[in-house]
Amino acid sequence: MPTSILAMDEKASQRTAAIAAHVSMRNSSTEVTDTSILGQGNPMADMAAERSKASFPVRELTYFLDGSKDMTALKERIMTELERDPVFENIDFYDLTKEQLRERTMSRIARLIHYITSEREEVSHLRLSLVGLMDMGLLTRTGVHYGLFFGSLRGSASPKQFQYWVAQGAAEMKGMVGCFCMTELAHGSNVAGLETTATFDERTDEFIIHTPQIGATKWWIGGAAHTATHTICFARLIVKGKDYGVKSFVVPLRDPKTYDLKPGVSIGDLGKKMGRDGIDNGWVQFSYVRIPRQFMLMKHSKVDRHGNVTQPPLEQLTYGALIGGRVSMAADSAQMSKRFVTIALRYAAVRRQFTSKKGEIETKILDYALHQRRLLPLLAQTFAMQFSSDETSARHRELMRKIDSTDPSDLKAMATVIDELKEVFTTSAGLKAFTTWACAETIDQARQACGGHGYSAYNGFGQAYNDWVVQCTWEGDNSILALSAGRGLIQRYLEVQKGGKVPSQTAYLSKIAVLKCAKAGLRQIDSVAVLSEAWEAVAAAVVSKAGESYVSLTKKGSTADEAFEETSQQRFLAARIHTRCFMVLKFFDRISSARPEIKSILTDLAFLYALWSIENDAGLFLQAEFFTSKQIDEVRELCNSYCRKIRDQAVPLTDSFNLSDFFINSAIGRYDGNVYENYFVQVKRQNPSKPQAPYFENVIKPFVHRDAEVELDVEELDEDEA
Amino acid sequence: MPTSILAMDEKASQRTAAIAAHVSMRNSSTEVTDTSILGQGNPMADMAAERSKASFPVRELTYFLDGSKDMTALKERIMTELERDPVFENIDFYDLTKEQLRERTMSRIARLIHYITSEREEVSHLRLSLVGLMDMGLLTRTGVHYGLFFGSLRGSASPKQFQYWVAQGAAEMKGMVGCFCMTELAHGSNVAGLETTATFDERTDEFIIHTPQIGATKWWIGGAAHTATHTICFARLIVKGKDYGVKSFVVPLRDPKTYDLKPGVSIGDLGKKMGRDGIDNGWVQFSYVRIPRQFMLMKHSKVDRHGNVTQPPLEQLTYGALIGGRVSMAADSAQMSKRFVTIALRYAAVRRQFTSKKGEIETKILDYALHQRRLLPLLAQTFAMQFSSDETSARHRELMRKIDSTDPSDLKAMATVIDELKEVFTTSAGLKAFTTWACAETIDQARQACGGHGYSAYNGFGQAYNDWVVQCTWEGDNSILALSAGRGLIQRYLEVQKGGKVPSQTAYLSKIAVLKCAKAGLRQIDSVAVLSEAWEAVAAAVVSKAGESYVSLTKKGSTADEAFEETSQQRFLAARIHTRCFMVLKFFDRISSARPEIKSILTDLAFLYALWSIENDAGLFLQAEFFTSKQIDEVRELCNSYCRKIRDQAVPLTDSFNLSDFFINSAIGRYDGNVYENYFVQVKRQNPSKPQAPYFENVIKPFVHRDAEVELDVEELDEDEA
Repeated sequence: MPTSILAMDEKASQRTAAIAAHVSMRNSSTEVTDTSILGQGNPMADMAAERSKASFPVRELTYFLDGSKDMTALKERIMTELERDPVFENIDFYDLTKEQLRERTMSRIARLIHYITSEREEVSHLRLSLVGLMDMGLLTRTGVHYGLFFGSLRGSASPKQFQYWVAQGAAEMKGMVGCFCMTELAHGSNVAGLETTATFDERTDEFIIHTPQIGATKWWIGGAAHTATHTICFARLIVKGKDYGVKSFVVPLRDPKTYDLKPGVSIGDLGKKMGRDGIDNGWVQFSYVRIPRQFMLMKHSKVDRHGNVTQPPLEQLTYGALIGGRVSMAADSAQMSKRFVTIALRYAAVRRQFTSKKGEIETKILDYALHQRRLLPLLAQTFAMQFSSDETSARHRELMRKIDSTDPSDLKAMATVIDELKEVFTTSAGLKAFTTWACAETIDQARQACGGHGYSAYNGFGQAYNDWVVQCTWEGDNSILALSAGRGLIQRYLEVQKGGKVPSQTAYLSKIAVLKCAKAGLRQIDSVAVLSEAWEAVAAAVVSKAGESYVSLTKKGSTADEAFEETSQQRFLAARIHTRCFMVLKFFDRISSARPEIKSILTDLAFLYALWSIENDAGLFLQAEFFTSKQIDEVRELCNSYCRKIRDQAVPLTDSFNLSDFFINSAIGRYDGNVYENYFVQVKRQNPSKPQAPYFENVIKPFVHRDAEVELDVEELDEDEA
Repeated sequence: MPTSILAMDEKASQRTAAIAAHVSMRNSSTEVTDTSILGQGNPMADMAAERSKASFPVRELTYFLDGSKDMTALKERIMTELERDPVFENIDFYDLTKEQLRERTMSRIARLIHYITSEREEVSHLRLSLVGLMDMGLLTRTGVHYGLFFGSLRGSASPKQFQYWVAQGAAEMKGMVGCFCMTELAHGSNVAGLETTATFDERTDEFIIHTPQIGATKWWIGGAAHTATHTICFARLIVKGKDYGVKSFVVPLRDPKTYDLKPGVSIGDLGKKMGRDGIDNGWVQFSYVRIPRQFMLMKHSKVDRHGNVTQPPLEQLTYGALIGGRVSMAADSAQMSKRFVTIALRYAAVRRQFTSKKGEIETKILDYALHQRRLLPLLAQTFAMQFSSDETSARHRELMRKIDSTDPSDLKAMATVIDELKEVFTTSAGLKAFTTWACAETIDQARQACGGHGYSAYNGFGQAYNDWVVQCTWEGDNSILALSAGRGLIQRYLEVQKGGKVPSQTAYLSKIAVLKCAKAGLRQIDSVAVLSEAWEAVAAAVVSKAGESYVSLTKKGSTADEAFEETSQQRFLAARIHTRCFMVLKFFDRISSARPEIKSILTDLAFLYALWSIENDAGLFLQAEFFTSKQIDEVRELCNSYCRKIRDQAVPLTDSFNLSDFFINSAIGRYDGNVYENYFVQVKRQNPSKPQAPYFENVIKPFVHRDAEVELDVEELDEDEA
């Protein structure tokens, strides 16, 4: 035994002994006292005390965040409807298996249809965004039908085709459930490289949809595994031996009556994913599947009976169209961050740990400087995310209205709008990338700030992280989007150098020369003027440096593609800093419209956000010589003091987010602060006591009760050598 | 309908249309060509080509990493044993439910016992570390019994007590399975604040173990829910009304025969967690549970028949004992990172995306500058993590040997060793914190680098992330450990200022004056001398700044506790930079013992690691004036060029980690590079086709086939008013 592992864990046993010894050392004996004055105090009273410290009218801030008092009322109405509906009961959410989640998703969609088909656009919008907060997979599965499948019909079908599919039930998911076959196993971001073919057979007036090889298998198709009857399939249009590139086609997958697969269609379940298991993602292979020619969506490209192909002229409007999705993901990032900073801050306001003086009640973890540093900048960032997505969304709507009211034949007017749109396109790419990343980071940091209890499924972090992070990969992988934003910034820089107009979101490019010499100097750092200028100066420095690298490479003979590739890292940095600068500036802008009684707390948050962001990229501010080394130390100190200043407002600020316990769905994040009871009750409800483990008879018993193995006396087998 | 959501998704439909239009734009028609020369090429041939580029003997590097050729052989033997044993079959790992995982964990422990009780310490060590790579929950559940339960008996029981429990079956898990009741619902890190009581009843010579209130419920107890029969319970020793602080007690929980709970013991299942669902964590409440006095572990503190309490004198040895666990977590971080950088790099070497010239095969994603930037520094960091944990582990063993061979009565000699131990204590705290965080980041970045396929459960990332991240929280929350390391560094700084001896790991503190003036100057940046000095200079600057802040606060009247609290952020930074400095220096040190044929690649990796780390903290290097702003730009450029330089060695380097496909357990990370086939086969195997979804009859059919609701003509109900 001394050579076995039983002896081996010397270190571990020393460790354990050490813990014991260590603890006993720190506790010389004391008289036993009333434990209620020690330990964890009274969490509910603590929470009430936190609320009483509010320095601003919480309800006013809610209205400000929602946009108006009416919007708050509408949001509360929807929250109530969802909370009371048994189909949306969510208390068991974290214990559902993949199979249960999928079934529940469809039950919920069946209920959502009632609302979607009967209420106003804005209401459905709000409803779905709240649905996304409580069940991300459900929002996606709904979005696959309405956003992708039905949206493709609206956007790419001819009016006649659209009416046809609506008559078939596409609008109400009646007799028809849609999915969207774009991505292939070997092709994601590069849509132009898709390999599925749609070959025109003039003889029968049909297209033959075909998967030429395994890499062309349609992959990640939400809804394909179980629920979709039809799909929009992206495939290369081949007519008379000519490849016209990727177009979209409606392809029936299953008989809507029996759900039997159509001939030539092979579908499989993609099974378990990191998250969003409520979506039945599948793979699809087509083997010479024939569809009528008319099932190609022909609003833009057309194929007639004789195989004549008409293609649309190049349209710049793609810019406008992609922005909406990105902005909504930035808004989702803010929304989801609200949920998780709320949990972590409420917990921090009642959780106590260590005491500075013996016999005293332990200290709330929110009172520790480092804990404030971990959470309060994330709280400030949550506001920044909302304000910048609000702003971008408004700007996008405004530009789309402008386009609608501009005469398409007025080329000069169109060019102006499109130029502005290009800029929002760049900003929205960066915003999507950096806010979805920031939200993932927020969920994760908030979890860690709750210590071990962050690891329990019932506090919501694990599921949310797993469900969330796909946002960083789909609808444009964040890295690729950031590079694309960086490319846009370099292009903008070059245009400005040539004397081009500078739209508002990159205004700093018009004053590069001034910003190059800008310094904080003797001015007070925590001021809107200095912090705005600091961010503009650094954004200008980083973007112009990237632009100059690009110019110098092309002068040396690189092609544009090579020069962009060579400056990847700089483009990425430019996008990151431009986005941060944008978020800081929009935060300040938004405050100017706030009522006086909430202005002060919002300003503190904006300062903290700007300062903390500077601290994180101190090197760039020093390189730009905007701040001196001493001032960078001062920035760090200011971060500490703004954290201290905001600390007392932490709980009131999370209250202003106005998310009910149902949507928070976290035992330790509930409004009342009664963390331990709530958590214990939830754990017990979801895991009722059983006398023995289900594997007691099969596994535990035979193992624990095993007999000593009979020692075989093998020597008996020796031949008698005597 | 125009006011409903069917019209609402204007943006989404524009988006979709835009994608289609965008794609079609980028594809003017081309003649259809042989698709095999386009698209994704031949992944297996690509992988073979990558291997042919190796500039160093891969096998030599494996021996170097493992420590010797013999260690590699031993590791391979164990890998083979585990792979071939059906109990360790792992192909279905990602599809197991919590219940299945728990059952499998116990089956595997039953098999592991055979090895643990019969083989040498080093072999079991290696075996368990490999087990941890394939099934983290299993390693934990084994560790709960052997490390914590049995380890406590070894470390804290008297020799007689230890023999008693071994005779009961504790060593072989026969008739006795242990768990470890330390943490309480309201008390984690602050062990001294635990509230469970063990009150001595002199009348019956028993202790009464009791949970006074809900916050004192034992929580997170691994093994308690289903499998443990006994526990080591941490409780406050109360004798004759006096509280002696927290001690440990063996408490029987269940009848080992029937597994019925003992009277007064309440146990529940903690249910679903973010990860490691194979561990049956539970909560435990004790209601006046009586145990014999002799069940208190009495190696250190003792209570006799008459209630006389003897407590041990204060021992500094706790330092040594805690280090082992931390170092092993740093080693685990390196090991787990190896697994995930391998997956992402192999995938990047065969995945192709976008083509720069029309008609050409698409580019391997590993050839993109940004992709190299995302993965290669993490590859370099993986080596750094291993070397620094190897070094700390060796140093720890050496010091423990020194202690064993030092005469305890030679106070001066003991003081010297303990002083050295203190330093390793500080370094190991930082190392645990920053390597477990770095590993979590590596798993997550590697996942994102695999795009959408990183989200499939079958590629391993999601499960591993969820299983891994608890490492950042338990055995000392990383933030608290970092603060503790920072405290150690300030103390060391103060001692050095007073002329105290400087142990090797903080050698830079002995040359603060010199380092303060150190600059890169005209020297070549990518050299061991400059990079080492750069890190030492910055570590010295950060630690001394924290130390000076502390001094100035105490001079102004703060207590030590207040001054430490006030400098939290600086302490955290000091710990982070000290750890990074340590990892850079140990990387260089280790290379000096490498054979010439692997020295060059290791040096490139070490340079990349040091440079990338500088880039990430550029502000500090500028503040310390070690590098000029121009040199920081040069550092960024050097990062790019070392990435380019290492790129061709990426696959050979991952091969040197020598992890078989069984341990990698990722469809897209397999050795042969046949990513799409492997992945497709795995998805199909785990999700066999079924004609309809299991919820077809109950949910899908009634929804999709629903009839139009009958419009009730309510006007008929009006009273006739005519």
